[in-house]
Amino acid sequence: MVQKSVAGPEIERLIQLLTKLPGLGPRSARRAALHLIKKKEQLLVPLADAMGVAVSEIGICSICGTVDTSDPCTICADPKRDSSVLVVVEDVADLWALERAGAVKARYHVLGGTLSPLDGVGPEDLNLTALVDRCGSGDFSEVILAISATVEGQTTAHYIMDQLSPLGVNVTKLAHGVPVGGELDYLDEGTLAQALKARTQF
Amino acid sequence: MVQKSVAGPEIERLIQLLTKLPGLGPRSARRAALHLIKKKEQLLVPLADAMGVAVSEIGICSICGTVDTSDPCTICADPKRDSSVLVVVEDVADLWALERAGAVKARYHVLGGTLSPLDGVGPEDLNLTALVDRCGSGDFSEVILAISATVEGQTTAHYIMDQLSPLGVNVTKLAHGVPVGGELDYLDEGTLAQALKARTQF
Repeated sequence: MVQKSVAGPEIERLIQLLTKLPGLGPRSARRAALHLIKKKEQLLVPLADAMGVAVSEIGICSICGTVDTSDPCTICADPKRDSSVLVVVEDVADLWALERAGAVKARYHVLGGTLSPLDGVGPEDLNLTALVDRCGSGDFSEVILAISATVEGQTTAHYIMDQLSPLGVNVTKLAHGVPVGGELDYLDEGTLAQALKARTQF
Repeated sequence: MVQKSVAGPEIERLIQLLTKLPGLGPRSARRAALHLIKKKEQLLVPLADAMGVAVSEIGICSICGTVDTSDPCTICADPKRDSSVLVVVEDVADLWALERAGAVKARYHVLGGTLSPLDGVGPEDLNLTALVDRCGSGDFSEVILAISATVEGQTTAHYIMDQLSPLGVNVTKLAHGVPVGGELDYLDEGTLAQALKARTQF
């Protein structure tokens, strides 16, 4: 439903734009807008500033493809990271998730999506040429494909494998299994079958 | 959980501020931030602009207490509205909800909350003096209390009634009953009892 004109067009434009954020529908966008307007000094002003800074400062890292305010990004420029391991992810959100897990202190490569012929996403739409170049340099002893276990993700992983195999680089992938804290009851058969197949000694 | 430093502090500040919006938790704030950064030209730039405009232009209407870019607000300045009816609401969100319903084309008065002694909200914290002044002017033939049917809301309504009764103004309140589209099964006993009591001829 279109918001009727009960306030100035500026407020309606703010609501309309907030509706485009993932996780906010028309109702929650209105609530968010009202919250912002009420907390003008504590929230609206700093958020407007932060967005202004983001507009002017945030860009894409020319090495790995993540978003950051510096180029090369914080991760590519970090000398303490293991430069012999490259983790390939679909998206910046996946990179952030892996960093939160803190399981690997290595370099990253962000593809920017997965191959999806039905949606018209081909190899030329992904950050693949740069990946092959980076792997061809011989700097990496291992390339970990941290790509979703979806059909598109696995298709993309196989395509990358085909591209990298002539280079003789060691390519690995994430383990399948029961999520930590997960109940067997709620798991699909595919996951259970994989978890059984890859069982380890207790 | 605190977001680890995987991107510049500017991105983390943006995420942190987005987390403070109602409806966005840490995870959805990260998603929203990433979405904004990816859709820089289509979304981040216009949203930053809209917020900048909101910061500089939006204020509180000196007559009714709603938020708007003009003072008096769009509603108070609208000559087509019925100036003899005043609808008293708790909050700007309630005013917007009533306007979306489109059921009344009258004037409004926004209290800015409800009386809540436990939370330290007394009559002096609400926009009550202005309400009594407006009602005392004799402009309004009816004052509709469109206040929530909660304990605090009803306490506030009774307090307003006490304040307005010496002025001899006709004060009404919203009807209780079955919500349109509501199933009897899911309604509480209080609502059902009120709906039965206020039954009308079919």
